[in-house]
Amino acid sequence: MNALLTSWESACASSGALRFVDVNLRGIGQVMFQDNPLSGALFLAAIAWGSYAAGAPQIAAAGVLAAFVSTLTAQWLRLDRPSLHAGLYGFNGVLVGLALATFIAPGPLLWVCVVLGAATSVVAMRAAVRALEPWGVPALTAPFVLVTWLLLLATYGFAGLAGDALPAAGVVAPFEPVASTRLGAGEFAQGVLHSISQVFLKGSVVAALLLLAGLAVSSIAAAAYAVAGAILAVLTAHLFGAESDLVSGGLLGFSPVLTAIALGAVFHAPGVRSAAYAALGTLLTVFAQAAFNVALTPLAIPALTGPFVLVTWLFLLPKLPFDRAP
Amino acid sequence: MNALLTSWESACASSGALRFVDVNLRGIGQVMFQDNPLSGALFLAAIAWGSYAAGAPQIAAAGVLAAFVSTLTAQWLRLDRPSLHAGLYGFNGVLVGLALATFIAPGPLLWVCVVLGAATSVVAMRAAVRALEPWGVPALTAPFVLVTWLLLLATYGFAGLAGDALPAAGVVAPFEPVASTRLGAGEFAQGVLHSISQVFLKGSVVAALLLLAGLAVSSIAAAAYAVAGAILAVLTAHLFGAESDLVSGGLLGFSPVLTAIALGAVFHAPGVRSAAYAALGTLLTVFAQAAFNVALTPLAIPALTGPFVLVTWLFLLPKLPFDRAP
Amino acid sequence: MNALLTSWESACASSGALRFVDVNLRGIGQVMFQDNPLSGALFLAAIAWGSYAAGAPQIAAAGVLAAFVSTLTAQWLRLDRPSLHAGLYGFNGVLVGLALATFIAPGPLLWVCVVLGAATSVVAMRAAVRALEPWGVPALTAPFVLVTWLLLLATYGFAGLAGDALPAAGVVAPFEPVASTRLGAGEFAQGVLHSISQVFLKGSVVAALLLLAGLAVSSIAAAAYAVAGAILAVLTAHLFGAESDLVSGGLLGFSPVLTAIALGAVFHAPGVRSAAYAALGTLLTVFAQAAFNVALTPLAIPALTGPFVLVTWLFLLPKLPFDRAP
Repeated sequence: MNALLTSWESACASSGALRFVDVNLRGIGQVMFQDNPLSGALFLAAIAWGSYAAGAPQIAAAGVLAAFVSTLTAQWLRLDRPSLHAGLYGFNGVLVGLALATFIAPGPLLWVCVVLGAATSVVAMRAAVRALEPWGVPALTAPFVLVTWLLLLATYGFAGLAGDALPAAGVVAPFEPVASTRLGAGEFAQGVLHSISQVFLKGSVVAALLLLAGLAVSSIAAAAYAVAGAILAVLTAHLFGAESDLVSGGLLGFSPVLTAIALGAVFHAPGVRSAAYAALGTLLTVFAQAAFNVALTPLAIPALTGPFVLVTWLFLLPKLPFDRAP
Repeated sequence: MNALLTSWESACASSGALRFVDVNLRGIGQVMFQDNPLSGALFLAAIAWGSYAAGAPQIAAAGVLAAFVSTLTAQWLRLDRPSLHAGLYGFNGVLVGLALATFIAPGPLLWVCVVLGAATSVVAMRAAVRALEPWGVPALTAPFVLVTWLLLLATYGFAGLAGDALPAAGVVAPFEPVASTRLGAGEFAQGVLHSISQVFLKGSVVAALLLLAGLAVSSIAAAAYAVAGAILAVLTAHLFGAESDLVSGGLLGFSPVLTAIALGAVFHAPGVRSAAYAALGTLLTVFAQAAFNVALTPLAIPALTGPFVLVTWLFLLPKLPFDRAP
Repeated sequence: MNALLTSWESACASSGALRFVDVNLRGIGQVMFQDNPLSGALFLAAIAWGSYAAGAPQIAAAGVLAAFVSTLTAQWLRLDRPSLHAGLYGFNGVLVGLALATFIAPGPLLWVCVVLGAATSVVAMRAAVRALEPWGVPALTAPFVLVTWLLLLATYGFAGLAGDALPAAGVVAPFEPVASTRLGAGEFAQGVLHSISQVFLKGSVVAALLLLAGLAVSSIAAAAYAVAGAILAVLTAHLFGAESDLVSGGLLGFSPVLTAIALGAVFHAPGVRSAAYAALGTLLTVFAQAAFNVALTPLAIPALTGPFVLVTWLFLLPKLPFDRAP
């Protein structure tokens, strides 16, 4: 694996086109914190499969286009090269592209939005990095969440942007406590895997396995924490009586998965205490995901990874002794 | 009084169990800014009486459990001892426990929530303290507000957590301007005292008097500002035509009471100018409380002390010449 | 022009009354970033004309009263003189006064609110300036937006403050995608000019021309960017199918106008790259304005210049190489 990556790196060093590909693959990899082009390639395969299987190949295309636009914008703004080459100006754009194409009906104006969203996500990323500098806390996917929320909210004011998968009409229905049901083994497994694939807005077992493979080639610990976080999220959500469809669809689990990886395998040194701390953060993220879902109901927009960002910031800000430098 | 506190302190210094009690009492005292175990004991009596009189003793139990969990969490995270011993990692947890037990129906999952809320409130407190370090501004009850909002919102997504006192069904009724009425002397006095007891989520005259006693043993100025803030809040709310039940129930006054104490007696040197400044802040808090009530109506969660936190931050950030170091 | 300003400045230096007038005029000028009493006088003429033409002269009176109260509050708080003399503690108060008198029915309590709002806007401005110090980013109109939102929300809880122009009853109607129509030359011109006058909450062609004159006497570039920003906003909003009334009324254009001036003519050195950057920010502000309109529908309060503040902060935080020191 390392030999492969080394020869790829030397090929990139001598070719602008390959470097461009490399930067975009790393940008896709950074969605799950992996500065690794092979992870990015496997994640891209997961995106492609998930979009194809859902009959919406334009979603994968929007993700790739958004990655390109993000990289070009970062170059145009002459942002710092180390961050650019590590894919740190790309991962928010990829997610913006995937989300916009998931929630807005296809059409020429969708593509204008994808370009605008990807370009401004780079500005938002640079802004977030500077804003968080005094605390040494990472921007995470906050730029993605902010830009996508703005653009999805705007669709309700623009007739040219029909919100395909957004609940335009029944928006202001009162909240109804949901009924609890049993959780079978099949639904449990599906919930765990979909929790992982929903990080890229996909409900697909194949995509989840590709994502786990992409994590494992770069960091076994990250893959383990992804699975552990998904299991903890599915069990907690079921125990507290969340709606079965949300649990088995992974819709309460993708933010906790990201929190578990971030707190357990990326920003803290591994150990028993940091594992317990990551578990506490993952638990709170399950509640935060349910809370965001409720709070955003009147606005009819999805929570995206907002709960992950909020809880992970809360848990990284204390800079506890088991911290690892980002 | 001082002799009593001195002998208590020396007893605590030689006994881990007494120190644990002391830390928790100070945590309860810090809800109203008093680093004083006697204040904490009187506040605890107010909580106990208010819960008992309302036929809900489990609320006081949740507050005490939450205090214990907060202290143990802070010890486990090895947070700084001076802050821990001053009760600064406890007061948010106490409030989280009281609020969750007030708004969520009793049951095993409620107690899981209390433990989770108290533990994460400590993380949130440490995060807030670090986040506010560049400005030398205190975290106040922001961690309590954030954690409790998340957990209360989540109850709408979890069938296992029925929101006891939350308006689940009629949530999205349109706002209706309320009718103004006369304010009798009895309602005025009740409104003032309930404004003080609602700081601990209690509508009880006895609890209010116990709280005032707890303030007075530690700081006469704090007790005076609590009463003055409550009077100003009740008069302003009535003058502007707020609903009578809200005024006499103290529900528009508890945030202004905290603002008055903070700006007048805790974070600024006493004087005419700081008193006028505190009055201006207290006035704005009355409007902020009404504003938060309206803004949170679609989400069907209570404002808690959010208005106090927002306005007090606004009024402390300028670091005006009459500031006293926290 | 310069000779006129020089002799005015020396007259102000020797007269407290003239200095007071000067500070207030500069405060009005700073709404559009102009530290220039002549700009302020022309802006005041625009406010007066717009209020008179709309049959609501009390709005202009509220703006002037709010300016006076802001200046006096800043003096009472002994804030730094250079900022005070440049009008930086006045522009938020002016806008608070205009907005409250626009949205709340006339009556004695309105004037109490104007005084309270203007006084607290100064505290909020000082707080915002200190809060943003670590990043060297300006406070913009954030204090105006925050204070006005709080006071307008509070009107729904206070029978004494009837929200004149606020949609109290039909608040919680579901969002409906709007129908697109053609944009004639007359509506286009009106949309562009009203986008400029709506910065001061006026829909008036005469007021817009007075505002452009006020900009031009101080900065030709600012006037040019105001027109360019308005054109870009109107075209974008129309292209994406925004409601015709909103477009021609300038209600989607006033925040983009401010973003265009700020990013193109005030905080960056002029040039092709900064112009492209300003255009990108202006575009995002159009979407942010639509997004805020949707997000605030359940709360029944107007977006004010919130979208401008958010996007301009995002675009100033990166401190890109074409930055000019504020």
